[in-house]
Parts: sequence; structure tokens; C-alpha cells
Amino acid sequence: MVGIVKRNIKLTIEYDGSAYFGWQSQNGHHATVQETVLKAIQKATGEKVILRGASRTDTGVHAFGQVANFHSLSTLPPERLRAAFNDYLPHDIIIRKAEDVPDKFNAQFKAKAKTYCYTIVTGATSSALQRHFSYYLKGRALDLKAMRKAARYLIGRHDFSALGSAAERNRRHHNIRTIYSVNIKEATTMFNGFSIRNIYGRENRIIQIIVKGKGFLYNMVRTIVGTLLLVGKGKILPEDVKKILKSRDRNKAGPTMPPHGLCLLKIEY
Amino acid sequence: MVGIVKRNIKLTIEYDGSAYFGWQSQNGHHATVQETVLKAIQKATGEKVILRGASRTDTGVHAFGQVANFHSLSTLPPERLRAAFNDYLPHDIIIRKAEDVPDKFNAQFKAKAKTYCYTIVTGATSSALQRHFSYYLKGRALDLKAMRKAARYLIGRHDFSALGSAAERNRRHHNIRTIYSVNIKEATTMFNGFSIRNIYGRENRIIQIIVKGKGFLYNMVRTIVGTLLLVGKGKILPEDVKKILKSRDRNKAGPTMPPHGLCLLKIEY
Repeated sequence: MVGIVKRNIKLTIEYDGSAYFGWQSQNGHHATVQETVLKAIQKATGEKVILRGASRTDTGVHAFGQVANFHSLSTLPPERLRAAFNDYLPHDIIIRKAEDVPDKFNAQFKAKAKTYCYTIVTGATSSALQRHFSYYLKGRALDLKAMRKAARYLIGRHDFSALGSAAERNRRHHNIRTIYSVNIKEATTMFNGFSIRNIYGRENRIIQIIVKGKGFLYNMVRTIVGTLLLVGKGKILPEDVKKILKSRDRNKAGPTMPPHGLCLLKIEY
Repeated sequence: MVGIVKRNIKLTIEYDGSAYFGWQSQNGHHATVQETVLKAIQKATGEKVILRGASRTDTGVHAFGQVANFHSLSTLPPERLRAAFNDYLPHDIIIRKAEDVPDKFNAQFKAKAKTYCYTIVTGATSSALQRHFSYYLKGRALDLKAMRKAARYLIGRHDFSALGSAAERNRRHHNIRTIYSVNIKEATTMFNGFSIRNIYGRENRIIQIIVKGKGFLYNMVRTIVGTLLLVGKGKILPEDVKKILKSRDRNKAGPTMPPHGLCLLKIEY
């Protein structure tokens, strides 16, 4: 093997996370996305590789644009590799793109920005067709203006201990992260581009919270959403989010929202 | 019971058809949407009712706006009935609306228009997140202009024997139906209002064929789509659709497309 230069291959991966225990391998105890992709690579190339993923998405979280990379001796063109991987993958995981990248590219450590979207359906009834991809909030008219005001306190470089998971709470110096933007919008079209107004009338609304940052603590996006929802429901004031952040106390923030409303949209390098 | 006037209640129902053997009850051999809703009504009201559905959607077909009606002695307000039904329904079926309607309203026989949408994802890879709600056509650039031209031959009142199912083929006088419109469009946003271009780049397109008519033969929408796809792929000419229709010969038309791409959008009265 000495002297043989391996290619570095970048994958862009879409998955429905419903059936998986998240991205990260768990020593084979549960089906994870990473393991499933690894097995497909092994079947297609005969190689056992190390697959580095950009985001350690949690159980039930979805992705349109997870990114991962691995080194390979395969001589197949990227298009052929992609086709072979997809042949070995179940229908809920799809390699959207396979491309050769410079040797130093590392999906895990070189990401410049990660964008996640959390989708909330509000109204008197939930949605059967969107139930796996949205969180249902019964009959609530959310105050989007207040939520947007609160979100502004999160932009920038902060110690996010108050919004990170318990596991990370004690490592304070590790809890500094940078958020680039938090967009809160009402979707006008839904799954398949149908107009929400046409289908649901005024009964249901679909609210999306799109968070872009350099990186996130474990559960951080879902806790940001849980905290912004407290503001949207009028339970706390927008200014309280600033205080929560400053407190570095996880108990002061809102709940960690369920995973199925969360989707990893894209990773930028 | 003599002299007691029952209310007539209209339901608007959304469902993910993936787990059901269609709408129509099959004497309990398989789970159907109609049976599942009937059981919820029985649990909520204590009544055994007759539930008339507007569209006999097939195994695996979805609905945003199926309509059904039943007569009831319940004195609960419609909002309360809806909530009770939804409490007893699984998450893949939702009663969106319950309303009192005049006694003569009959969901099955009084429909003025039914609108269905068939969704097709084209490109080098399919979509993991939309796989239950769209048909994947590998790598095909469809000629939408030719498809639209072909679709015009279907508008109006015709004998649709060539596009109906075998079971109905021999009852020629029953095979006359009226189609109001066939719209073929490329969706720009997808599930949750994300821009398709943003997520998928130029690699994937989502094509929707929306058919509105007074009524349809069994499998007719799916066969119309199969035939229009032959045109879109350049295998037949738009004018051939006119000939196929005239022939009244089911063997001349395209294939019946798989059910999971089909969704009943709405019923108008």
C-alpha cells in the first residue's frame, strides 16, 4: 500500500431519519445512517473506510444535505460510485452527490456553516401527510414578531451553555459557538409545492425556524426552537432570551423540541 | 326512533395512504381508511353509521381533501365531534373539518368536481424525503410542452374506455366522463416550502400533473399520467393521445402509474 495515493471523496446525503438512531455509529447496537452508508460503500468498493460526517444528527432528525467524506482506492468515476452506493442503500437514504475533493478536505472539521430548519404546524388539527417532518402545536397563533425580536439576541458569538445539552454544560470553554442567522418565516407552500392556503384555508399555518451557524452544541437547535416558542406563546418576553443566554443555565431555557421537526438543510465549506 | 331527525355531517379528511388498502371497506380483510374512520365514529358517538366517501381512492393513494358524510343522532357541536374522532384516529388519518350539512347532501353522488395531483421527481437520484409521495423517473428531462399539448385532447366529455380499468372496459355506456382541466407544472418549492433549486440545484425537478374532472373511471388518473409520460419521453406524439382516446382500447394507452405519486386534493360540491 505504500506510495498509493487514495482519493478523497465527498458525499452529499439526503435521508429520512425516522427509522434511524441518528447519524453516528453506535457499535452496531442500533441502525444509524453512518453505518448504513458505510456498509453500502464497503459493498460497492470492497473497502472498509472511515466516514467523517459534518453533523451528528440525532435520532429521528432528517437531512437534505448531510456531508461526509472518506478516502478510497477505487478508480470508478464519481457518478458511477454514487450509483453503486445508491444501489446498496435503502430508499430512505440517498447519496445526492459524490465528488473528488482535495486531500485536506474534512467534512467534520472544515465546515464553515451549517443550516438547520425546524418546521412547526399550528392550527386546530395536525397534518397526516406532514406528520413525520413537522412538530404539531395545537391551535396556537404564534407571535412571530416577538420571536424574531428574541432571535436577534442569539446572533453572534456567545457562550450557549444555557441552550446546550446537559452533557456539555460543565465544559464551559467548549460551549462558545457562533450563530450567523435565525430566520422565522411562515411557509406559503407545503410538501410538493401545494399552496397551504389552497389546501388548508386559514386553519393551519406552517412556521419554519431556520438557524445558520458555524457549529452547534448537542441539541442546541432544538432548544433554541423550544425557547423561541416560549416567546411566541407569550410565556416569556423577547428580552428574557438575552437573560437566559447570559445565565448559562440550561434550566432557564425552554424545552428541547422533538427531533422529527428538525432537518439539516446544508453544510457549507 | 320514529320521528327523530338525524343530523347529516360532512367530514373533510386528510390521510397518508401508505399503510391502507385504499378508502373502500373490504369486509374487514384489510385495513382501509373508511373502516378506520367508521371505527373512530363508533367509538366517539356509540353509533354504527353508513359513511359515504366521495372518492374510492386506491391502495397507497393519499388525500388532502377526501370528503365523506354520515347521519348521526349525536348532539355534540361539530368542533367537538372532530376532536373526538381525531382522538380515536391513528396519526396518518386526520379529520380536518366536521360540519352540519343539509339532509340531502351526499358526498358520494353530489360531487361537482374532483381534483387529483400526481407528483413525479426526475433526475439522477430519487428523493429520500419525498419517496412516499412522488414517483421517481430516473434521469428524464420530460417534454412538458408536448405533454401539455397532449393533455388538451383529454379535456371535455369523452368515452374514456381507453384510459379506464379493465373491469370497467366492457360497460361502454358507463365510461363517459368529463375532464375540466389538466395542468402540468414544474414545482419550484417542495415539502415544507423549501426552494427546490436551493436544495437540489439543477439536478432534480418535480413535475406535477393536476387533473380536475366531474368523475373518473377506476385507475383513470394514473393511466392518464402514464400516457402523458409516454408523450413527455417522446415515445408517442401528442396527437396520438387523441387516437388512443378514440380507439377506446385500454391496450393502446400508457401504463397505470404506481399509486404513491397520487394525491386527492379536493372535492367540490
